[in-house]
Amino acid sequence: MSAHQQTAASPFVRACRGESVPHTPVWFMRQAGRSLPEYLKLREGIPMLTSCTMPELVTEITLQPVRRHGVDAAVYYSDIVVPLKAIGLDLDIKPGVGPVVAAPIRGRADLARLRDLEPGDVSYVTEAIGLLTAELGPTPLIGFAGAPFTLASYLVEGGPSRNHERTKALMYGEPDLWRDLLDRLADITASFLKVQIEAGASAVQLFDSWVGSLAPADYRRYVMPSSVKVFDAVAGYGVPRLHFGVGTGELLGLMGEAGADVVGVDWRVPLDEAARRVGPGKALQGNLDPAVLFAPAPVVEAKAREVLDAAAASGTGHIFNLGHGVLPSTDPEAITRLVDFVHRSTQV
Amino acid sequence: MSAHQQTAASPFVRACRGESVPHTPVWFMRQAGRSLPEYLKLREGIPMLTSCTMPELVTEITLQPVRRHGVDAAVYYSDIVVPLKAIGLDLDIKPGVGPVVAAPIRGRADLARLRDLEPGDVSYVTEAIGLLTAELGPTPLIGFAGAPFTLASYLVEGGPSRNHERTKALMYGEPDLWRDLLDRLADITASFLKVQIEAGASAVQLFDSWVGSLAPADYRRYVMPSSVKVFDAVAGYGVPRLHFGVGTGELLGLMGEAGADVVGVDWRVPLDEAARRVGPGKALQGNLDPAVLFAPAPVVEAKAREVLDAAAASGTGHIFNLGHGVLPSTDPEAITRLVDFVHRSTQV
Repeated sequence: MSAHQQTAASPFVRACRGESVPHTPVWFMRQAGRSLPEYLKLREGIPMLTSCTMPELVTEITLQPVRRHGVDAAVYYSDIVVPLKAIGLDLDIKPGVGPVVAAPIRGRADLARLRDLEPGDVSYVTEAIGLLTAELGPTPLIGFAGAPFTLASYLVEGGPSRNHERTKALMYGEPDLWRDLLDRLADITASFLKVQIEAGASAVQLFDSWVGSLAPADYRRYVMPSSVKVFDAVAGYGVPRLHFGVGTGELLGLMGEAGADVVGVDWRVPLDEAARRVGPGKALQGNLDPAVLFAPAPVVEAKAREVLDAAAASGTGHIFNLGHGVLPSTDPEAITRLVDFVHRSTQV
Repeated sequence: MSAHQQTAASPFVRACRGESVPHTPVWFMRQAGRSLPEYLKLREGIPMLTSCTMPELVTEITLQPVRRHGVDAAVYYSDIVVPLKAIGLDLDIKPGVGPVVAAPIRGRADLARLRDLEPGDVSYVTEAIGLLTAELGPTPLIGFAGAPFTLASYLVEGGPSRNHERTKALMYGEPDLWRDLLDRLADITASFLKVQIEAGASAVQLFDSWVGSLAPADYRRYVMPSSVKVFDAVAGYGVPRLHFGVGTGELLGLMGEAGADVVGVDWRVPLDEAARRVGPGKALQGNLDPAVLFAPAPVVEAKAREVLDAAAASGTGHIFNLGHGVLPSTDPEAITRLVDFVHRSTQV
């Protein structure tokens, strides 16, 4: 039985499809790595991007939060720049800074450096997912990739950016070059997601982390075509396609239209309102403020209850998650308690 | 004739009131200071918070962008932590970092340090505004202050914060202490705005820079009462009250309800949609993406035109501005050209 068949009846996959579930499934963005002490111990002395190429290590890090918290899905431990590194771009992840690109992309000649990704470039991914699905059994593994806009923002800025001014200057000022850049990134992203699905990932999430910095008309004109291309490329596999960005309240409808089966929502928009913006036929994921986990346990439960109530009012499939990644200094115990609370309060 | 009388017929004040104007008025958040070469020269060797206490210097810095760009309003050169420094809190602005508070506020005993602000604490403000209004004549001066939530976030975190987790933990976990903290800050803020209005400011803008990190229900419960208190305290002067925060698409209606006459909008929400959220009887300010100024001039004009068209479609008073502050590396020439474009294209 394939990994996809084994996980088809899981609460996570069923909720993505809007089917009935025994309890609301829950997982957390950034659940793997970052804050868990057992992760920090494993990673000691190993640079981030090196760790992503070590199948046994990736497997162990991906499994840690599943074991510890009892979440309903594993999310593949990786980084959004992994496929760019794999095709030979000179970039690294600097601790405390983020991805840093040695030679930013600024002109048409730079596009030549963006060759397509071959499965052989990321054989460690195929290997790790093989190990993972064997361990996970009926628990789904979520594969993931960064979306073309967010990848482009790192490549054009040369690193993390608060205001994305170089990215936007290129987008507005050289729209043909911009379109070709995002089109190349869409191919790379689609290839990377295909590798993960073919190796056994039961769902994929496309992270457009920074696309919330765009107004809707610009999103539609400059970004949506490349996201559509990515989602179309993996539509044939029939695995749920999730899509998320932070601060995307104005873009939720368009992000669904781009081809997502599940739209992730940050904590700024209540889920019943999000459902109105996304429209029928799609599930929602989210949306507890990650900062709530720093409050006392009864507050966490009350705020989680608000999320569950809004989800129930929306009438669509719901995967409980935070409205952004787990913050680095979050107490892991608070996360475990939250998983338990969501399961207990939604059991049918 | 008082400064308020002298400026009552200005396009800026008239637009704030929804009255007809000879052209759409324009000014820019952060127009004073930051990027202008003549500013950087003046400030050489003078720490930020020291510069805010020097009336002649403040006057010159405030006037520089009015002279250079021909904007329709001056905005008082200051910083949101100035009133907190003036009541004796030990804080400073670290270049490249932002406000840093020596002893963050974490418990009830810390509230005692938040005494009310007396006009004598900021006599340099009264003096500078006297000098300014004499120079400005019919051009209005906008006074400003940080709103209680944003001030609280600096005081609780001890400095700038990406996720505001300590602030939110206090807000959710100790709601009585939180309420009292924001109430103290509302008094200080109101006193600081009164000083500016009595000295001659023709309008005031309350900056709740980081309040966009809250969902609407939390804004209403934990923040809105303190903002209402500030706006109520200055209502009697009859000067326009502006209100702005970044990423506040979900909060626009509530921020208007809090007592603003003009609601500032960042670039994520088109102004016609913003008008629907804010409701009738209020003007709008905004909302060109500051990053657009890094694109070629024809693109800047096309995007500014989109803003003006959406404003016209909204049918309310409109003050043209960016959707956030001028970015530090913006070319001043691009700003001057934009002012000219807005004036030319809206002349009646």
